[in-house]
Amino acid sequence: MSDIPALDPPRRTLMGPGPSGADPSVLAAMGLPILGHLDPEFMRIMDECQTMMRRVFRTANDVTLATPGTGTSGMEAAVMNLLQPGDRAIVGICGYFGERIAAMAARTGAEVTRVTAPWGSPIAPEDIERALRDGPARLVAIVHAETSTGVRQPVEPVARLAKEAGALLLLDCVTSLGGEPVDIDDWGVDAAYSGTQKCLSAPPGASPLTLSPAAWRAVQARETPANSWYLDLGLLEAYWDSRRAYHHTSPISMTYALHRALALVLEEGLEARWRRHERHGRALQRGLEAMGLALHADAAHRLSVLTTVRIPEGVEDAPVRGALLERFGIEIGGGLGDLRGRVWRIGLMGESSTPGNVLYFLASLGGLLREHGFAADTGAALDIASGGLNP
Amino acid sequence: MSDIPALDPPRRTLMGPGPSGADPSVLAAMGLPILGHLDPEFMRIMDECQTMMRRVFRTANDVTLATPGTGTSGMEAAVMNLLQPGDRAIVGICGYFGERIAAMAARTGAEVTRVTAPWGSPIAPEDIERALRDGPARLVAIVHAETSTGVRQPVEPVARLAKEAGALLLLDCVTSLGGEPVDIDDWGVDAAYSGTQKCLSAPPGASPLTLSPAAWRAVQARETPANSWYLDLGLLEAYWDSRRAYHHTSPISMTYALHRALALVLEEGLEARWRRHERHGRALQRGLEAMGLALHADAAHRLSVLTTVRIPEGVEDAPVRGALLERFGIEIGGGLGDLRGRVWRIGLMGESSTPGNVLYFLASLGGLLREHGFAADTGAALDIASGGLNP
Repeated sequence: MSDIPALDPPRRTLMGPGPSGADPSVLAAMGLPILGHLDPEFMRIMDECQTMMRRVFRTANDVTLATPGTGTSGMEAAVMNLLQPGDRAIVGICGYFGERIAAMAARTGAEVTRVTAPWGSPIAPEDIERALRDGPARLVAIVHAETSTGVRQPVEPVARLAKEAGALLLLDCVTSLGGEPVDIDDWGVDAAYSGTQKCLSAPPGASPLTLSPAAWRAVQARETPANSWYLDLGLLEAYWDSRRAYHHTSPISMTYALHRALALVLEEGLEARWRRHERHGRALQRGLEAMGLALHADAAHRLSVLTTVRIPEGVEDAPVRGALLERFGIEIGGGLGDLRGRVWRIGLMGESSTPGNVLYFLASLGGLLREHGFAADTGAALDIASGGLNP
Repeated sequence: MSDIPALDPPRRTLMGPGPSGADPSVLAAMGLPILGHLDPEFMRIMDECQTMMRRVFRTANDVTLATPGTGTSGMEAAVMNLLQPGDRAIVGICGYFGERIAAMAARTGAEVTRVTAPWGSPIAPEDIERALRDGPARLVAIVHAETSTGVRQPVEPVARLAKEAGALLLLDCVTSLGGEPVDIDDWGVDAAYSGTQKCLSAPPGASPLTLSPAAWRAVQARETPANSWYLDLGLLEAYWDSRRAYHHTSPISMTYALHRALALVLEEGLEARWRRHERHGRALQRGLEAMGLALHADAAHRLSVLTTVRIPEGVEDAPVRGALLERFGIEIGGGLGDLRGRVWRIGLMGESSTPGNVLYFLASLGGLLREHGFAADTGAALDIASGGLNP
């Protein structure tokens, strides 16, 4: 009757840079009855999400909420509300997402100082220090887990420098929260945001965000309203706090998914969850090296949740990724920006971080690489990886 | 083990200003396997959504997409991308959502001319005409279905005036699309957006949006980037068209829900769906009047999908709405802004627009009003409404 076929998405093994797989109970939560966004029962669910977000961020911040959009909406809400025209922002850029923060900061009318490092290394705290000595800054922004490079940024030294200089520290936790250790209050982070579709393992569509009292004072002290009404944190907070002032119609079903996903994170326990991601990520990385491949990120700063591996000489990017998807149902990511065609990005996030996925991927990749002329040592890769998967 | 209870939202009869109820197959769609946002299978689903959105908007516009947020995100994307600092925008304001458009327009740095009407009437085209004569304008913005007042705005006369004056016409279709007749190309509308949680009957979380070739040229001819990176229509379009340039991680499960909801709209047929909403809305309105209540919106301009009824003298707002929710599980809306405490807003949108809901609501309300001292004629209301429900 219709020329539009019925929905029938195939089942994938999601090992790209996100979305990750979701627990069946998270998907099922979205099928629960829709409530009105001002229903007392829904407000209770929002309050519970807020409580659980604080625990996962490890913060006591009052202002903790989820922006009604993907992780990028949380990024822009944080950047846009903390910067006014004429402010100076120091942005650490060592990958695609640092660039994105800088682009958003520029749209606020702020002066942006770019502090860079090669795509594969973290930002050196001394470089931030130098930029802070050059003049006062409202904001220092860094990316905790740079999804484009697989690099983990050391946070505490940068947080100390920002605090000494009287600047606020903004931390992008899109890919780290729920997978890599994150400790907002202990580290002294003033603003942080994440996404739901990475290590929290819910579908994309909401962005947990938290502001320290100092960051919240800065938002409230603005002389001009934020550039966007939709992403105005003053208005969003008035909906999330006890005022419940109408702003937008909350993404109800997505909030159910977030609630269930956060509960699963806390049931597993943050430390146990971090250990699981670490164990599986390292097993994958050792397996890839045993196969004969080179990892891209600095050895001392590798994420466990997202691994970048160099595409070997003579092997083409797209045919291998295409065959992984078509023949094995495995999704991995290609390189972004300068790394396009040079690396693959393999995510082991949340529900996708399993021993089975590590071994299935290595076995599939090894065979495909041999078909494409690279002498992958699949046996060695699997032996080494298996050994590392034991808790 | 945890102090956070498991999710257990009660089943409600959703008759407020949105969200409306969703077909079980729409909720089930969100439980389908998550795909990567760059997966070819997901791109096909996006293309199909685009095709179906064009049909529901009745447009051939190339630029037709869903912004990754609630209806408010579509509103701001349209306003923000079509206006630059110094532009003049004429905004029709006869309710809460016209005010919201004006607030967003002001944040772009545009000069906003407010054309107003009482909350309960539409904007008079002559008032728009007068504002257009006062000087050139980039944009004329009106709300098709003002959710705060229950008023339907005549569109075609305003569209003609805007065209003659060389201004773009922006139409808010959040509450009308899929319930009230909407005909973007025939009417000559340049930009329109909607929400998923009203007459399309999906959960909130995406905003269908369409731009005419003239509106798209205006977006491309901007001298300064839009205020927001997240809501930049140039970047969003590059992800929705064949370039598939990475911008955000699409809300995958929400896109499934949108796909299924649009398919249901088209299976029912737009005209049949409009007739259904008209029949049930009028039956409700006649029933309310037979009960002894007064409708708020001008008789000639009443929406069928959202009815405002005056709260009778001596009856309090909150206790009645509270009892409807607690005893009967029925959600209706209170008044917004100037109408707070003065009207109730009753939605019959999408899946919520059923004969059963009309009768159940009238019966429940009649009894409660009598408990609260108002001599509601429930019998007359039900007789009159039943008669009007026959197709």
